[in-house]
Amino acid sequence: MATIANSVAHPTVVSADPFVPAREQKNLHNRWHPDIPAIATVKPGQVFNVECVDWTGAQIGNNDTSDDIRDIDLTSVHNLSGPIAVEGAEPGDCLVVDILDVRPFDKMPWGYTGIFELENGGGLFAREFQSRAAKAIWDFKGVYATSRHIPGVRFAGVSHPGLIGTAPSAELLATWNKREGALIEAHANAVPPVAYGPLVPGAYVGQDLPNDLRAKIYREGARTIPGREHGGNCDIKNLSRGSRCYFPVFVKGANLSVGDLHFSQGDGELSFCGAIEMAGIVTFSTSIIKGGVEKFAMRQPIFLPSPVDPLYSAKLIFQGISVDYHGDGTQYNMDASVTVAYKQAALNAIAYLMKIGYTREQAYLLLSAAPVESHIGAIVDSPNACVTLGLPLGIFEHDILPKDEGLKKLEFGQCAVRSDGVL
Amino acid sequence: MATIANSVAHPTVVSADPFVPAREQKNLHNRWHPDIPAIATVKPGQVFNVECVDWTGAQIGNNDTSDDIRDIDLTSVHNLSGPIAVEGAEPGDCLVVDILDVRPFDKMPWGYTGIFELENGGGLFAREFQSRAAKAIWDFKGVYATSRHIPGVRFAGVSHPGLIGTAPSAELLATWNKREGALIEAHANAVPPVAYGPLVPGAYVGQDLPNDLRAKIYREGARTIPGREHGGNCDIKNLSRGSRCYFPVFVKGANLSVGDLHFSQGDGELSFCGAIEMAGIVTFSTSIIKGGVEKFAMRQPIFLPSPVDPLYSAKLIFQGISVDYHGDGTQYNMDASVTVAYKQAALNAIAYLMKIGYTREQAYLLLSAAPVESHIGAIVDSPNACVTLGLPLGIFEHDILPKDEGLKKLEFGQCAVRSDGVL
Amino acid sequence: MATIANSVAHPTVVSADPFVPAREQKNLHNRWHPDIPAIATVKPGQVFNVECVDWTGAQIGNNDTSDDIRDIDLTSVHNLSGPIAVEGAEPGDCLVVDILDVRPFDKMPWGYTGIFELENGGGLFAREFQSRAAKAIWDFKGVYATSRHIPGVRFAGVSHPGLIGTAPSAELLATWNKREGALIEAHANAVPPVAYGPLVPGAYVGQDLPNDLRAKIYREGARTIPGREHGGNCDIKNLSRGSRCYFPVFVKGANLSVGDLHFSQGDGELSFCGAIEMAGIVTFSTSIIKGGVEKFAMRQPIFLPSPVDPLYSAKLIFQGISVDYHGDGTQYNMDASVTVAYKQAALNAIAYLMKIGYTREQAYLLLSAAPVESHIGAIVDSPNACVTLGLPLGIFEHDILPKDEGLKKLEFGQCAVRSDGVL
Amino acid sequence: MATIANSVAHPTVVSADPFVPAREQKNLHNRWHPDIPAIATVKPGQVFNVECVDWTGAQIGNNDTSDDIRDIDLTSVHNLSGPIAVEGAEPGDCLVVDILDVRPFDKMPWGYTGIFELENGGGLFAREFQSRAAKAIWDFKGVYATSRHIPGVRFAGVSHPGLIGTAPSAELLATWNKREGALIEAHANAVPPVAYGPLVPGAYVGQDLPNDLRAKIYREGARTIPGREHGGNCDIKNLSRGSRCYFPVFVKGANLSVGDLHFSQGDGELSFCGAIEMAGIVTFSTSIIKGGVEKFAMRQPIFLPSPVDPLYSAKLIFQGISVDYHGDGTQYNMDASVTVAYKQAALNAIAYLMKIGYTREQAYLLLSAAPVESHIGAIVDSPNACVTLGLPLGIFEHDILPKDEGLKKLEFGQCAVRSDGVL
Repeated sequence: MATIANSVAHPTVVSADPFVPAREQKNLHNRWHPDIPAIATVKPGQVFNVECVDWTGAQIGNNDTSDDIRDIDLTSVHNLSGPIAVEGAEPGDCLVVDILDVRPFDKMPWGYTGIFELENGGGLFAREFQSRAAKAIWDFKGVYATSRHIPGVRFAGVSHPGLIGTAPSAELLATWNKREGALIEAHANAVPPVAYGPLVPGAYVGQDLPNDLRAKIYREGARTIPGREHGGNCDIKNLSRGSRCYFPVFVKGANLSVGDLHFSQGDGELSFCGAIEMAGIVTFSTSIIKGGVEKFAMRQPIFLPSPVDPLYSAKLIFQGISVDYHGDGTQYNMDASVTVAYKQAALNAIAYLMKIGYTREQAYLLLSAAPVESHIGAIVDSPNACVTLGLPLGIFEHDILPKDEGLKKLEFGQCAVRSDGVL
Repeated sequence: MATIANSVAHPTVVSADPFVPAREQKNLHNRWHPDIPAIATVKPGQVFNVECVDWTGAQIGNNDTSDDIRDIDLTSVHNLSGPIAVEGAEPGDCLVVDILDVRPFDKMPWGYTGIFELENGGGLFAREFQSRAAKAIWDFKGVYATSRHIPGVRFAGVSHPGLIGTAPSAELLATWNKREGALIEAHANAVPPVAYGPLVPGAYVGQDLPNDLRAKIYREGARTIPGREHGGNCDIKNLSRGSRCYFPVFVKGANLSVGDLHFSQGDGELSFCGAIEMAGIVTFSTSIIKGGVEKFAMRQPIFLPSPVDPLYSAKLIFQGISVDYHGDGTQYNMDASVTVAYKQAALNAIAYLMKIGYTREQAYLLLSAAPVESHIGAIVDSPNACVTLGLPLGIFEHDILPKDEGLKKLEFGQCAVRSDGVL
Repeated sequence: MATIANSVAHPTVVSADPFVPAREQKNLHNRWHPDIPAIATVKPGQVFNVECVDWTGAQIGNNDTSDDIRDIDLTSVHNLSGPIAVEGAEPGDCLVVDILDVRPFDKMPWGYTGIFELENGGGLFAREFQSRAAKAIWDFKGVYATSRHIPGVRFAGVSHPGLIGTAPSAELLATWNKREGALIEAHANAVPPVAYGPLVPGAYVGQDLPNDLRAKIYREGARTIPGREHGGNCDIKNLSRGSRCYFPVFVKGANLSVGDLHFSQGDGELSFCGAIEMAGIVTFSTSIIKGGVEKFAMRQPIFLPSPVDPLYSAKLIFQGISVDYHGDGTQYNMDASVTVAYKQAALNAIAYLMKIGYTREQAYLLLSAAPVESHIGAIVDSPNACVTLGLPLGIFEHDILPKDEGLKKLEFGQCAVRSDGVL
Repeated sequence: MATIANSVAHPTVVSADPFVPAREQKNLHNRWHPDIPAIATVKPGQVFNVECVDWTGAQIGNNDTSDDIRDIDLTSVHNLSGPIAVEGAEPGDCLVVDILDVRPFDKMPWGYTGIFELENGGGLFAREFQSRAAKAIWDFKGVYATSRHIPGVRFAGVSHPGLIGTAPSAELLATWNKREGALIEAHANAVPPVAYGPLVPGAYVGQDLPNDLRAKIYREGARTIPGREHGGNCDIKNLSRGSRCYFPVFVKGANLSVGDLHFSQGDGELSFCGAIEMAGIVTFSTSIIKGGVEKFAMRQPIFLPSPVDPLYSAKLIFQGISVDYHGDGTQYNMDASVTVAYKQAALNAIAYLMKIGYTREQAYLLLSAAPVESHIGAIVDSPNACVTLGLPLGIFEHDILPKDEGLKKLEFGQCAVRSDGVL
């Protein structure tokens, strides 16, 4: 019949199985290195799909305890799909990547947000809260997520890849390793560590490789934790479906890798595993601007946000300054203090959410996962930075605005905690 | 006739003259102290106007050199209108302040954005740029601002008081002075200083006061530079006309003060005198929620943004990480690095703007003054924070998007600089 | 001092007194005619103010009965400020008008919305409701309006001139009079009339004119009720402060006139006097595009909406189709049915608002005055058009969403009605 | 492994094949009748998928001529999936339907917009343009659509079911047939017809039914062309993925049917086949509010729009009034004139688009398919209604704003036309 003619699905150039441990799968890797060969090549203008496992590579279950979060192996995250070469891309070019869609697998319509243990993963309030593992499972219902572990909210996902980047050149990789190595050396005994250097245990490239090449990649390959000049783990919630991102190209083919998909995330992704982590499918198309790095003075990716990001215009906004008034009252100075200010804003929001019935763990998870907006207000008014954190009102089933009579405290239970009950 | 009956203008409870030096005027003050008497009292529900001088108290002129910026006396800023007591407000209450309007005086339809000298005022890039004084004058045309010193842009103002707060209690003031004093002591020789302690020279309260009271206020009064638990100089652009702010009350009457009006500002207010600074009129109404501090777990103000904030949905977004790649390449660690990341994002934007023809000074001023949005992306991905800075496309008269052929460099001249030409 | 230098207020090129009957004032007129001389001339690029009386010319009072609405003289509305000539504008050009601001007089911080009597003014539901005069007074509080006659709502104004246009050429005026005359002739006995032809009684031009010229203008001048090719009474709420409008020019100088200012209005302005009518000040600037009519294929103005229009993204949307199911159940056909569909949508919204406690009159006034959005859904699905009417949730102090337990009926009193109590 | 446990895809309760003619498939129907048995039953709260063919049931191909549009059989459209019963729903209840997602089949990533022949289908400008068949094929690229037949635009879909409704009761069906029958009788010879009565030829219910029941349904069943009190073919673009719709229930189980999916549509869907028509999958969940019809005074569905509707805030807005100035210049009166006004606004936009290089057919298709917003401005200013049509600027690859130098005319070719070349 008529409609069948010329109906051709967009090709899937990288396949992955969300139910199989990442280390048993082809096409994945978890280190950045210029010598990881591309596993697929696409042409500019082509629309294609890339399948991704969740960032832990199938370690977390859809259940009601946080034991899997407690016991997670973090040496082998993040599991990235790729690299994907783009025909014609050369160092110095700008690779334009249209993130056309980001969605979960139909067969896995759920994701999770976790709070890590202080000693295994940490998170923004790991020390303040002496964090024990906790978790919320989110059910995906079309554009929305809800959680049996955090009742009373429903929100549309600002779905995005938490981690996306081009491959570094050998020179750029060396720069990373040098500067991060210096930092590690300067803070040798920090807990948690200030940075993560190359590490052979846990390293993985799901390809057939000569042994010496594999050894070199594992030995030199940069860890995936931080974002860097090539993009990487930037965890920018607005790099979402519908956005257009301009990446600098450092190696022939650009060699794009992607993973750590998020159904949703708040600015800052507080609890580290704070987005709604999911496995899923990204749809891309690409184009190349020759010499774009120079043309646009690019030192890091730039992007255009999506017109379909969720619009929750009404917000309740909390502020924070560079004084640890939720802790010991220390006054920080400007250079060190945006993080302190951000923490106070978040702690103010958590205190407010507890007034309406959420536990501290639920509030922490919610601020991490929901489309919370965090702006830098003042950054030049010494000694206090002022940071704001905006809670969208439209995600709550109840009216949470300040009222003359105070806030109504409801019963929302608790999120998933450890089977031994330790909080 | 019909319309005249019952037509009553909203009263102006604080008058100020934008053309007279602040120190020659009543009703202004420039220190925070619980003992500064209220100069006016309003009833809850009443709509009233408050007139404000610009933050420098008439030191800056509508001209084409930046000599006045170079020579500015910063000991006597910010000049605040107030305090204004609200009937019935008591410590522990929440003072609800509706910021109903913020507008310039009809007779002064212009404002300014300045870059201070490294040695007199500084700013986010004072050291990087070895800043010399520069300035842009902005003409107010209804809801819009344009500048002869930064051609090619026009934007709607997100007009707000940069500085608004309730009076501290004696106890709270003591806390401030203690913690900030400790910081100053710990960085005794920092240039610029890490914080600013009480300072008698420059202190001002435009009221008839007993000498000993005046002396006490001048000796103990907190400086107005940073935002604190009572609000203060938070420079939050979205605390704009149409917003509703909830303040904690620390003294009987609440004693609200306001000043440092901004016609517009970008997140962060980079250049310190970075907003479009103006004199003008704020329209308020207030109400009181008894015991609100406890009811809402308030440690700092919370607020609801305005439905009439300018909507520029299309943006070009720059990223930054905690590596000083525009400088010496140093890798910073997480706790100290949001500021570094923010700087890189801003420097990336400045580099881009220079590609389309703006000078570095113009770009710096523009990012400070235009409704730029800065979000904290990732704050838990050690060692790099990732901060984004979004440049609204709708403020430019020309299409500034990346193009295959590169960016078209136009001629925009230069902002106002020193009469001796030093940059 | 510094700030006073070069501080020059924008000039007011047309003055008006909101408290004086229009017919006693210079600078106003209430007919469209090419021969009305310009009362002021401006240069392209100049920013200038125009003062306007309310559309009735001071007939309505800030009180609690609707007798003034009942007794209104409609022959002499709308009272327009102008005409204002723009140097260099010629027929065939496009006059670009920046509506930079629209605001009430400080001395008259209130406006009104009225329901006219069936026999004197009518309105969309004049016949259905057998309308008797009713009224709501709105208090302006900065960007917001509230009404003692319609408690429970507060909204930001999408302030705009209901009526703005360039002067018609003699030829265009003749076309209007001919085509409207034909319509009137075809419906000679319609109540209310289908259109309003030139009418000497009530005509007014507040200038010294030769008698014969005045007589000609009064005899031929087009009434101001409908919008036409030159703009006119289009009552487009989004032609608001911050918008840019492109007008075709029909006479030398363009001869712009403006009036019928609205603090706010819903799409459709249902009750005819349905906006929040106000006196006030418009700030303009203009420019000219030579030959713009041909360049842009203009048959009527085009415009760019404002970035500061109130953003109320959450809405409750009602639908209507071309069946008078609130009346006799008649099925209309497509060509005649968008109005019918619109009425059903509005009646559905009114019925809903009555469930939460508003009277029919309050609901009718509220839909007219609040920033209600009305879209044409389907216009090609014979026989039913489908029209939607969206009620912004953010304007209500209470949650009005559908709930399992039904809607909570509150007590909102009644709007202002006739002193004889007739409804 | 962990992730596989408890991973359960949402069930598909209605299957359909987009490549098979509708009449050869189970589960579809194309008439409204209370006696069509439900083909599936769902529980309140359950998330489920419904597959839909395109509205023509596979008659249109992905090719470059419009012959299939020309030859379309319109007696058997629209092909709906359902009915679906919801457990516990009874007449008088309100059925809450969450439209959680609307997306194309992966295997059919394209859709179409058509202009029908004057004699076979028509459309808003069928007579004005003496329409011959034309077509644009749209490629779906994640959230975006582009067309080789209308180059230079790309936009995010506001994807929605054009047609969704609950089954009518016997009484409601009788009302429809009576009132529409009366209209048809009154305009017996209209071309195109003013309405479409029950028609046995083309009627279809894809179920095994007793012959007499089938005959009764075919004989009495209401056609699907117009929207009615139960919803139906309302073609409301904002009833999109993420919206929540409240339907009145007329029969036990509510019996929801859905079809005519649109990837995108402009307000009004001008060309009748004007949306981007697609086959695809809708994800729903439902709940029931007992007695909701009375509780909410429902005469027709009400709904809450989605937070993920595309946000294109910058627009170029065209106006239209009730004068056929693109035709014979006739002045229409108010009751009959919103359609006339809407047409003028659309014709003004088409004329503008032709200035930048689109053909009339391309412009007509684009206004139908893109997220164009059409508001009713004034509806009470006799004799002219004023309607606006807003063209989102962000969908164009080029800057289309009015410029001093006029508009740049580009070369965009032509859409798909008949193989015989007749336009």
